[in-house]
Amino acid sequence: MHSTKKTNKSVTLPIIGIISTPHETIQDMPIQPSGAGNIEGAAIVFSKYLDGLKDLDGFSHIILLYHLHKVNDYKLAVTPFMDDHEHGVFATRSPIRPAPIGISIVRLMKIENATLFFEGADMLDGTPLIDIKPFMRQFDNRPHAISGWLDAQEEDLVMRTRSDSRFT
Amino acid sequence: MHSTKKTNKSVTLPIIGIISTPHETIQDMPIQPSGAGNIEGAAIVFSKYLDGLKDLDGFSHIILLYHLHKVNDYKLAVTPFMDDHEHGVFATRSPIRPAPIGISIVRLMKIENATLFFEGADMLDGTPLIDIKPFMRQFDNRPHAISGWLDAQEEDLVMRTRSDSRFT
Repeated sequence: MHSTKKTNKSVTLPIIGIISTPHETIQDMPIQPSGAGNIEGAAIVFSKYLDGLKDLDGFSHIILLYHLHKVNDYKLAVTPFMDDHEHGVFATRSPIRPAPIGISIVRLMKIENATLFFEGADMLDGTPLIDIKPFMRQFDNRPHAISGWLDAQEEDLVMRTRSDSRFT
Repeated sequence: MHSTKKTNKSVTLPIIGIISTPHETIQDMPIQPSGAGNIEGAAIVFSKYLDGLKDLDGFSHIILLYHLHKVNDYKLAVTPFMDDHEHGVFATRSPIRPAPIGISIVRLMKIENATLFFEGADMLDGTPLIDIKPFMRQFDNRPHAISGWLDAQEEDLVMRTRSDSRFT
């Protein structure tokens, strides 16, 4: 292990597309793809990146990384939707984080040209897409993970919880 | 579903810390945390974000998002380490992607002040950290996901595969 070196204080990443969903406002949005069930969305990749989609249709699930573009500030202590207590923002999936980047594991239904149709849409309409990664069952599951404060909550809470205005 | 709107072509995100690992070069690195087993790393969060770590120590696994800072270009068609055929870059976890952002699900061992000690270090020493999210068993597992071209490979291939110079 080696000492850290000087580095830039920010990184600029290209937007590779736009995500279209039925959610025009943060009110009443599902808070995770698990709670978004069969809510459909579409990720439209800019044409210059089209060739990067080859063989993605063999995957049942994909990881979308996107810019939480309506977030203009952050808090280090937040009370998440699924708890009554404050936690550090990095111990939550709250959108109001220092680097406002979201990840959603969604079910890929079909790809037509540069449009990916998916189920599990838990992001706003017009969300800028940063990256698409295939969900790989072999790497990405941690079935026995311990989930801190969340484990103290009811397992089905996320299915019933909807967002409100606390992060707007 | 609604039509897409005009958007910026890039997004600038803050770096929140630095990741320290034993990997000084891309040669011979593990290609996924699953292949990095008990290789230890440390994520050192800048002090201004320290309060955001509260209660993160209750989670056994965390998702690190980081800048693939040695990647200067991208390809839309890549041959991944675990296959002999070309695939679209978005159907792979190759680092040479349009938005060079990496994600690793690692095992959190302990937190001391602003330093997170973890196992499963599959990134370069000095990697800029963008975000930390708790891995939530309730949301993030997809045990029955279908993994396209990867499913045609041997399940244990990733455990034996090491990177080479193809992405340098």
